[in-house]
Amino acid sequence: MRNDEALDVMALACVLEPGQGQWALAVEVEGAGAVWQRLLAEDTPVGERARRLDVSVVARETAARGFRFVHRGSDEWLSGLDDLDGARGVADIHGGSPVGLWLAGRLRLDELGASGVAIVGARAATEYGVTAASELAAGLAEAGTVVISGGAYGIDAAAHRGALAVDGATVAVMACGLDGLYPSGNDALLRRIRSEHLVVSEYPPGSRPARHRFLTRNRLIAALSSATVIVEAASRSGAKNTVAWAQALGRPVLAIPGPVTSALSVTPHRLIRDAEAALVTSAADVLAELGPLGVLQPPLVDPHGRPTDDLDPAELAVREAFPARRPLSVDELALLAGVAIGECLGVLSSLSARGQVEPLGDGRWRLAKAPT
Amino acid sequence: MRNDEALDVMALACVLEPGQGQWALAVEVEGAGAVWQRLLAEDTPVGERARRLDVSVVARETAARGFRFVHRGSDEWLSGLDDLDGARGVADIHGGSPVGLWLAGRLRLDELGASGVAIVGARAATEYGVTAASELAAGLAEAGTVVISGGAYGIDAAAHRGALAVDGATVAVMACGLDGLYPSGNDALLRRIRSEHLVVSEYPPGSRPARHRFLTRNRLIAALSSATVIVEAASRSGAKNTVAWAQALGRPVLAIPGPVTSALSVTPHRLIRDAEAALVTSAADVLAELGPLGVLQPPLVDPHGRPTDDLDPAELAVREAFPARRPLSVDELALLAGVAIGECLGVLSSLSARGQVEPLGDGRWRLAKAPT
Repeated sequence: MRNDEALDVMALACVLEPGQGQWALAVEVEGAGAVWQRLLAEDTPVGERARRLDVSVVARETAARGFRFVHRGSDEWLSGLDDLDGARGVADIHGGSPVGLWLAGRLRLDELGASGVAIVGARAATEYGVTAASELAAGLAEAGTVVISGGAYGIDAAAHRGALAVDGATVAVMACGLDGLYPSGNDALLRRIRSEHLVVSEYPPGSRPARHRFLTRNRLIAALSSATVIVEAASRSGAKNTVAWAQALGRPVLAIPGPVTSALSVTPHRLIRDAEAALVTSAADVLAELGPLGVLQPPLVDPHGRPTDDLDPAELAVREAFPARRPLSVDELALLAGVAIGECLGVLSSLSARGQVEPLGDGRWRLAKAPT
Repeated sequence: MRNDEALDVMALACVLEPGQGQWALAVEVEGAGAVWQRLLAEDTPVGERARRLDVSVVARETAARGFRFVHRGSDEWLSGLDDLDGARGVADIHGGSPVGLWLAGRLRLDELGASGVAIVGARAATEYGVTAASELAAGLAEAGTVVISGGAYGIDAAAHRGALAVDGATVAVMACGLDGLYPSGNDALLRRIRSEHLVVSEYPPGSRPARHRFLTRNRLIAALSSATVIVEAASRSGAKNTVAWAQALGRPVLAIPGPVTSALSVTPHRLIRDAEAALVTSAADVLAELGPLGVLQPPLVDPHGRPTDDLDPAELAVREAFPARRPLSVDELALLAGVAIGECLGVLSSLSARGQVEPLGDGRWRLAKAPT
């Protein structure tokens, strides 16, 4: 990717509202420059924002503060984020993957690999919840897992601190620009994570936190993590939103039980009771849920098979457009394969008859588990 | 049943060691008098005990203390106890149903019906566990459920007290004669249950508690209850034995979670995690698990169907020998149907081919769920 192309991606990340469309897919297919030129010509609020933006100012600010900007073309990109393109939305947030992310810290994003575990929960946590989150984070960090959370008061901060206490790795995903860490009461904690570990944001420097940005941010916490553990959460809690994202991504949701007398254990207990979450009591339990290598699912395609040998070019293009584990809609597949939607449907039907792909019944398709 | 036949049952209940055989089935098939005469002639320790017993002394003691003796022929008998005949054994205790039971109190045994719930757990319970058990018992009792437990310190006593606190019904199942309530520290509580509610024992007056009698007693707690709730239990706990009996009977096991920092919540958490118990946090959760009428399973035979119309007499005898929900071994079926074991096997094969019965694969058979 040329330098000005990278600047176009940053420009798009500045003006597009995260979680409001499949923009990362569009960039992958059309190229950032083409999408940016299209936006500049649009008579819309986004077009107006695009025309007013001087991206070089943002790029200078990013560099001056020691932040870095990464996107799907970057070495450091974590492919797990792309699973968001196949995830259904949660509340009024779409499931699209981020166009780009601002990062700060010594940890590389791609080091999370399959070893990141999110610990989320109530801001107004009890002493029990804080202890449980902190102990769990310490145990996971000692086992080499990266503890991911949102930097908030209560469970989030306890999780970060638990990891730091054993010199483990931790990542805080912010709902604001990385220059203005939030909440201010956790400033010392978040500064330490920003310098020694990793802070992540979809928002350019200078962005302020806002309610919808927390909901959008939660999808990143889930997507950066191999599993999400909920520690304490009242019946109305933002942590339930992160759990919903993990479910939308098909990632394991785990829950720490607590006293039945505690209102803050109501949500974990309900998730366990409804079989939406597995009960875990320790880091060992979490690691057991993730399996020996933290690998969540077997590969869908037998690496020794050659299921593509007898496909015609259009079939091959559509089949190759599928990511490894992520289902896609016909629109997305047509876009990625470079074929018309009508042709794409015909090809999917043909591939399906040969056991190569399968419909999910909700308009999306995925690679078949055992291609014939 | 004649009066002397009832005395023969009591005599058998005095000399046979509970949980060491299918004696209740033998009594049902052969009659108590015949079994008793057989024992009297036996050159065994049981035969010796039988010859030395003066059952009229036990009968007088039973009456003098205001206790009563019930057995399978009694009006007050609870049919759920008979499910023990089809249950696999636990530890070194066989699954046989009791030959008879001594009772004391105003509550009738058959009033438990499907509305009894066992609450069991650690003697050395925490304050949290005591509170949780007591609150749960109170909620269940208020909803009309009978709270069943073992009268021990800790969770047992908390469960009984919770029911009493709301003027609910409670049953204590003893591992000793009803004259010597155990443990003595719960004497006032157990006396109150004995006079106003119900105490139950398989052991005649004068029997002392012993370790194996607690294990034998636990199967009665499970069999008298529609479901068993475990509140707190360390990894080595008698409550796990009661849970194993509930599982052997196919009755629901429910567990109350607690702090992950508590050693006494290890067993409930493990049961939930391994899907051996459903997580419950309240009486409402327990009632939801039991269904609207406390009915655990739909009847296995369509009451409008007439699956027996075209059976020959031997087939009819074997089929009718089946209890409603309980699987039986070929031996037991042959005994109850009055056919030879070889004939019984042929009949089972024929009934199985017609979809009327099905093998469980462990040598036992049960009525098929949807007879054709």
